[in-house]
Amino acid sequence: MNIDVLSLFPEMFQGVFHSSMLKKAEEKGKVQYNVVNFREFAEGKHHTVDDYPYGGGAGMVLKPQPVFDAVAHLKEKAASSQPRIILMCPQGERYTQKKAEELAKEEHLIFICGHYEGYDERIREHLVTDEISIGDYVLTGGELGAMVVVDSVVRLLPDVLGNEDSPVLDSFSSGLLEHPQYTRPADFRGLKVPDVLLSGNHRLIDEWRDQQSLRRTWERRPDLLEKYPLTERQLTWIHQWNQQKRT
Amino acid sequence: MNIDVLSLFPEMFQGVFHSSMLKKAEEKGKVQYNVVNFREFAEGKHHTVDDYPYGGGAGMVLKPQPVFDAVAHLKEKAASSQPRIILMCPQGERYTQKKAEELAKEEHLIFICGHYEGYDERIREHLVTDEISIGDYVLTGGELGAMVVVDSVVRLLPDVLGNEDSPVLDSFSSGLLEHPQYTRPADFRGLKVPDVLLSGNHRLIDEWRDQQSLRRTWERRPDLLEKYPLTERQLTWIHQWNQQKRT
Repeated sequence: MNIDVLSLFPEMFQGVFHSSMLKKAEEKGKVQYNVVNFREFAEGKHHTVDDYPYGGGAGMVLKPQPVFDAVAHLKEKAASSQPRIILMCPQGERYTQKKAEELAKEEHLIFICGHYEGYDERIREHLVTDEISIGDYVLTGGELGAMVVVDSVVRLLPDVLGNEDSPVLDSFSSGLLEHPQYTRPADFRGLKVPDVLLSGNHRLIDEWRDQQSLRRTWERRPDLLEKYPLTERQLTWIHQWNQQKRT
Repeated sequence: MNIDVLSLFPEMFQGVFHSSMLKKAEEKGKVQYNVVNFREFAEGKHHTVDDYPYGGGAGMVLKPQPVFDAVAHLKEKAASSQPRIILMCPQGERYTQKKAEELAKEEHLIFICGHYEGYDERIREHLVTDEISIGDYVLTGGELGAMVVVDSVVRLLPDVLGNEDSPVLDSFSSGLLEHPQYTRPADFRGLKVPDVLLSGNHRLIDEWRDQQSLRRTWERRPDLLEKYPLTERQLTWIHQWNQQKRT
């Protein structure tokens, strides 16, 4: 997979793209990163990338020209591919694991990251294929959002995660939150591991984990249960918890 | 504000903490960053930070000792403050702008970032004050989440954002998505700016922007409108759009 990023702050990506899983994925030849400062594509002596908004108001707006031309250059370089052109912005669709799985099937992703500025609407309407928001909070730029999407996508590529990295935290893949985990020591400064996990009885352990996973989801993220196909047994557990809550 | 981060990959934070707004905030003395590799606090010759889960299963689990001791060290160093101790994890509360505003009032934040591994449940139950998830997608570690929270919090600190950085993208502060923005040229390769923005009539421009902002929210994020106090006029617009949709 080829990943291009357009950003006015390319140095932000160094540490993240060249550590840990993302670094290993590149070393294995599964992905190539290319971070481009689109200021280089800005016409005019001063390479201006932003300008005042039409109609007045605070803040600056990213001009269409540098972004259109940077994307055209990247598309030309990768002649054969039909890239997804992704605008990171608060108005975008809310990012989910499902979207990560969709993007992981692509050959070429181009991310456009604004910073402080808004985007000229013509970028949104005539250049991009996707608009993504990673959540309902305000960030200084699209860079962190692009890193989040890249991390979540690259880890899904075939042969990127080895066994040693096996994802215990895959809460959103199963649809329920992960059950509690414990490791040694069994008694840490007086804080104990639940007896069932020390029992060696795998039927009981699995049942405990299923129940804890459901209970945590029911307590913390009941919205996830709305779409979850609950079994008879799980419905019974929830019924009991609801009754306990009432009394 | 003091920000401590516990991570096994401290190099990931370099580019992000030392660029752009986060860098300026530190230079202005509004915030201090300290990224600590908690492996340094792990007992034993091999400084092991993780171990197999009790009860079996894939993946590794972060041991309580290194994390408890690293946090104790940081609390001791900052004797006067009562830090918020924040665990980045998919099971946490979903991060929002409201939470960013709450955290921006604190003096001291400590972030705990796992990586591949799960957390021993005793960390969750007996050490942390907050568990935060930045969204419903799976990431390799808590590092990107911590960067997202830090960015969103630091930009809210007094005197961090200058006028030149005025946040046009503050969709989630107002409760509605931002209206479209345009800048020069008025005609970019045949793509035109809407006439109203060139009219100079500020009453009409404001009305157009209000309507576009509402329309974009209604189309893309109807969930945001559920909590929004709509005016009579806005309700009339929505009624019209609903009728247009039906015909």
